[in-house]
Amino acid sequence: MAIDLARYVRDIPDFPQPGILFRDITPLLSEGKAFRAAVDAMAEPFRDAGVDRVAAIEARGYMLGAPVAALLGVGFVPVRKVGKLPFHTYRAEYALEYGKAAIEMHRDALLRGHRVLLIDDVLATGGTLAAAMDLVRQSGAEVAGVSVLIELAALDGRARLGGAPLHTVIRY
Amino acid sequence: MAIDLARYVRDIPDFPQPGILFRDITPLLSEGKAFRAAVDAMAEPFRDAGVDRVAAIEARGYMLGAPVAALLGVGFVPVRKVGKLPFHTYRAEYALEYGKAAIEMHRDALLRGHRVLLIDDVLATGGTLAAAMDLVRQSGAEVAGVSVLIELAALDGRARLGGAPLHTVIRY
Repeated sequence: MAIDLARYVRDIPDFPQPGILFRDITPLLSEGKAFRAAVDAMAEPFRDAGVDRVAAIEARGYMLGAPVAALLGVGFVPVRKVGKLPFHTYRAEYALEYGKAAIEMHRDALLRGHRVLLIDDVLATGGTLAAAMDLVRQSGAEVAGVSVLIELAALDGRARLGGAPLHTVIRY
Repeated sequence: MAIDLARYVRDIPDFPQPGILFRDITPLLSEGKAFRAAVDAMAEPFRDAGVDRVAAIEARGYMLGAPVAALLGVGFVPVRKVGKLPFHTYRAEYALEYGKAAIEMHRDALLRGHRVLLIDDVLATGGTLAAAMDLVRQSGAEVAGVSVLIELAALDGRARLGGAPLHTVIRY
């Protein structure tokens, strides 16, 4: 790769809470060449994968997933937090450190048999992405693959993705 | 325009609260050709405007602003709700029907003199976009223009934008 994208990721200690090292991608997004290179790198392995839709998870996932969809020439489907989508939704829960959270997707966003590329900024424990895969399956669609900008390999989120093709641009 | 984009916008009565007619753009986003046409239409008037960065407002603004930035080949700057950005921020308040809310932008996201294109899905009263313009000015950058997918003309948000060039794709 011509650009060292990891150089544009900023480490923020103790965010959003003490003990967490946050990987801040905003410096990467704000440099036109790095941003475009990241989007291209996330889309590239799926150019000929027969992808019908790109779905991404609120909110940082949208910053990468929407341009990936535009570049692939396919539609974009937002996976949102509960209560944000105005029409009929599917819902999937996932575990937090303490308690549970849930995400939603419109019931008419995907058609049965659609091949869906899932996008997020970071793969950590994989809980949110696994819930998003559940939403895709509730629609009768299938997961063509998962593409993330950053994989935190030590958390082994990869194991939660049920063998779906995973593409990672930056690995820690 | 070859595609009638307004046909892909779904009206949802009484969302998010009674008496509000919500313009749901998710059917437009999920059709590849309509999505790409919308992004192209939002970017087109600013192709030769010397834009250095595209900034967009959480969260629907990201679905349009990030692909506009990728197509223009410039960096993307997220304007977020309070507490979401991990580094030093500027803050701007705006009025809600009852009370106030605020948005933030990283202090190092823009450089003095940068020309910034602001993107959002809907221009209603203009309060959020006016606050985003304030953030751009706090950075010492200038607003090259504002591009929205939908303008609710009856609410006259246009008057809040201080004469910045405004481009609207669908007008109600």
